[in-house]
Amino acid sequence: MFCKIVNRRNFMFNNNFCAGHRSYSSIVSVIKRANIGEETEVKGWVKSLRVQKEHIFADVSDGSCAKKLQIVIPKHLKAEGLTYGSSVRILGKLSKSPRGQLELTAENVDVLGDCVVLDGYPFNPRTAHPPDYIRQYLHLRSRTNYISAILRIRNAVTKHIHSYFENQNYLLIHTPILTSNDCEGAGEVFKVLPDNKDTIKAMMQQDKQADNVYFGSKTFLTVSGQLHLEAMCRGLGNVYTLGPTFRAENSKSRLHLSEFYMLEAELAFCDSLEKLQSSIEGLIKYIFIETRNSNEDDLYLIDKEKNKPPSWLEKKFVTMTYREAKDILFKKGLADSDDGINKEQELALVEHCNGIPVFVIRWPKEQKSFYMKECDDNKMVEALDLLAPITGEIVGGSLREDNYKKLKLKLPSEALNWYLELRKFGNIPTGGFGLGLERLLQVLCNVSNIKDTLPFPRWPHNCEM
Amino acid sequence: MFCKIVNRRNFMFNNNFCAGHRSYSSIVSVIKRANIGEETEVKGWVKSLRVQKEHIFADVSDGSCAKKLQIVIPKHLKAEGLTYGSSVRILGKLSKSPRGQLELTAENVDVLGDCVVLDGYPFNPRTAHPPDYIRQYLHLRSRTNYISAILRIRNAVTKHIHSYFENQNYLLIHTPILTSNDCEGAGEVFKVLPDNKDTIKAMMQQDKQADNVYFGSKTFLTVSGQLHLEAMCRGLGNVYTLGPTFRAENSKSRLHLSEFYMLEAELAFCDSLEKLQSSIEGLIKYIFIETRNSNEDDLYLIDKEKNKPPSWLEKKFVTMTYREAKDILFKKGLADSDDGINKEQELALVEHCNGIPVFVIRWPKEQKSFYMKECDDNKMVEALDLLAPITGEIVGGSLREDNYKKLKLKLPSEALNWYLELRKFGNIPTGGFGLGLERLLQVLCNVSNIKDTLPFPRWPHNCEM
Repeated sequence: MFCKIVNRRNFMFNNNFCAGHRSYSSIVSVIKRANIGEETEVKGWVKSLRVQKEHIFADVSDGSCAKKLQIVIPKHLKAEGLTYGSSVRILGKLSKSPRGQLELTAENVDVLGDCVVLDGYPFNPRTAHPPDYIRQYLHLRSRTNYISAILRIRNAVTKHIHSYFENQNYLLIHTPILTSNDCEGAGEVFKVLPDNKDTIKAMMQQDKQADNVYFGSKTFLTVSGQLHLEAMCRGLGNVYTLGPTFRAENSKSRLHLSEFYMLEAELAFCDSLEKLQSSIEGLIKYIFIETRNSNEDDLYLIDKEKNKPPSWLEKKFVTMTYREAKDILFKKGLADSDDGINKEQELALVEHCNGIPVFVIRWPKEQKSFYMKECDDNKMVEALDLLAPITGEIVGGSLREDNYKKLKLKLPSEALNWYLELRKFGNIPTGGFGLGLERLLQVLCNVSNIKDTLPFPRWPHNCEM
Repeated sequence: MFCKIVNRRNFMFNNNFCAGHRSYSSIVSVIKRANIGEETEVKGWVKSLRVQKEHIFADVSDGSCAKKLQIVIPKHLKAEGLTYGSSVRILGKLSKSPRGQLELTAENVDVLGDCVVLDGYPFNPRTAHPPDYIRQYLHLRSRTNYISAILRIRNAVTKHIHSYFENQNYLLIHTPILTSNDCEGAGEVFKVLPDNKDTIKAMMQQDKQADNVYFGSKTFLTVSGQLHLEAMCRGLGNVYTLGPTFRAENSKSRLHLSEFYMLEAELAFCDSLEKLQSSIEGLIKYIFIETRNSNEDDLYLIDKEKNKPPSWLEKKFVTMTYREAKDILFKKGLADSDDGINKEQELALVEHCNGIPVFVIRWPKEQKSFYMKECDDNKMVEALDLLAPITGEIVGGSLREDNYKKLKLKLPSEALNWYLELRKFGNIPTGGFGLGLERLLQVLCNVSNIKDTLPFPRWPHNCEM
């Protein structure tokens, strides 16, 4: 065994490779240790400055946590260019303020990069700029409280998702971005081809169109990794993926992006919607509880007022059939046809359930995809949508058609013969779901516009940088 | 604090949401617990069968680990369709074989899905099919020992990468896949546009070309998230990303893919190549050591012969300048121009260093990208390549030009003014690197063809499914 050769823990933490490149401390670790009297060096950005008689007080952040470290700078040390927004290196000693707050009394202050607000810096000290304003400066907005807090939460949520699945022996699978099939059929897809005309020319064969030359078939950006996960699930058991997916829709709504992250899981040997629902409900509650513990300060930074755990966190999610949902909507005068459930209706159903997330199960088969398992009545399919406050639909899932003959009749294209063949050899029942990461972050952080839940949002007419 | 409201641990592990949908046990947990006498239910696939006088012995795998569980089936229980490749549900009691091996004595056997090899199943029992053969069946190949072991290792390596960076307070950033800039300039890029002509028609404006209509500018698949990471680094400190990147090259070599995963990190306040090197070396050794501990059985499954820790794991990586490297190559008669270092030369340099990975640092600036920091001589840049056995170049990195005026002169396009502006406000020195995940897996697992290190490889003429 290799662990006999190298003592791992010593290797990892004493060896100067792993300690990394830093001689200074991150502010999150300084605050955690709170080691009064310790000589400490920090590096970061000045978030506010207060000049008093003998001292300057600076709040410095290095992005590693929501909290700022208060620096006390004796006036004789005041460095040239020490302003709001400047980057600094501070050497000093940790102490406690008369009010018991941790602070660093500076012995040396270096300004690394100045920040002349009048030279076009879009943010001002002590100002809560509205998200729509901040969004105009994508390259600079990670410097704001609002966006930095959301991005730290996004990092934490990603981590909690991986922990949840690791605890249950799911394998992470990197499903492909480029694909020759359009999984949902319904989705508006982006097509992909080499930009270089010479490459296309060199690869051209007689019977091919330019769109097909590079890969031999027309190639799209993925709208879902589900079909690929199903292939992996039949060799590796429970699997999941978390990665970018794409829609070429002309929508600029506060709930849509052209590029967004989707968490998809495929459950081996899953033969009932109840099991699928229990897995989804467990996952969402786990993420909320873990994130409220790991990033309480960030949630507070986003919204001091609304930073409360949602009332549904200790309740069981509601389940109703599609039929029951439509009946409720008809009675409320909110539905006049049987044509699915739209966004307004989704939110009305959640409100009807006092804001508790609702599983709507068993949908008419003509409204859903070919791969969903038919119910015994042959009219409905074993599908579910989970509706949440703020965003409406947040998860879609189903049991998969595992009957080879039935699936063969419903297969939309011969190009999917590989998918059919999965059912031919050592087949198993499976079910799975897809959860929109950005929508989950909207619900978790109370963020109205989806474009603020990821670092570089892409939507129609917007793909700068 | 929310942890006062809900006892997290109880919630997570006792609550039946989180235990998930399973009433049966994963084989990895059965083997780990080895709880002799326990009533146990497992589900999986039959990997081999041996019929003896009174019993049938079946090795069953559910993909959760490299090991198979031996099932002892009394002959009177033999179920219809129990063959190599079939999927089964077994209920029984755990015991130890006369040789001390854990086995499950079956009390009930259900065949869930049969597998008729003669009906076109491409794999045979007790046969080590060559990787080139297996690769023809992408949708079925996760059922082979070779590919399932590599994919479990890929899952583990991903996990260890996240741990390494989390331990050092780096934030994971999801850099965008769609971008209007071609980071390296050199790279062959894929362009992206809506497939639906009606969408393009509806969005068309007078002065636009079809390529530009949807996003307002020509849009590509990313070749690197570096520039975006640099923007995040100036608000959040140390950051990294791990995701798909793309090259539209016409190369079918054993080292190239059209879609591959890249790990990129940007180190805040990093002002020397030594610090960058120490971080890269620490990361790679951490991944190798952790994976050799977490997935020893999988490494053995891939290659019983070569499953030894590499000799360099306890040695310091070699460092040489580009000049020194060229001198070595000239002396060996392997270089006749000053035009970079090609693949053959890379591997010769590693061999020259007895197979220890080599950092080649300080490159002529005309060979490298505009954003790299110039050395004091104004001829070279503070760049590095890390060369490894099997693959040659495995990491590329540099310090970034942090001088606003110098960068302005070198900026290839006005579209990158946002990148220049990062240096204008609260600027800091940074450095970073990119590591090819698939190439790392080649070195770690001793896999000759990069197409076997990920579930669905894409290369010229190959994007089926």
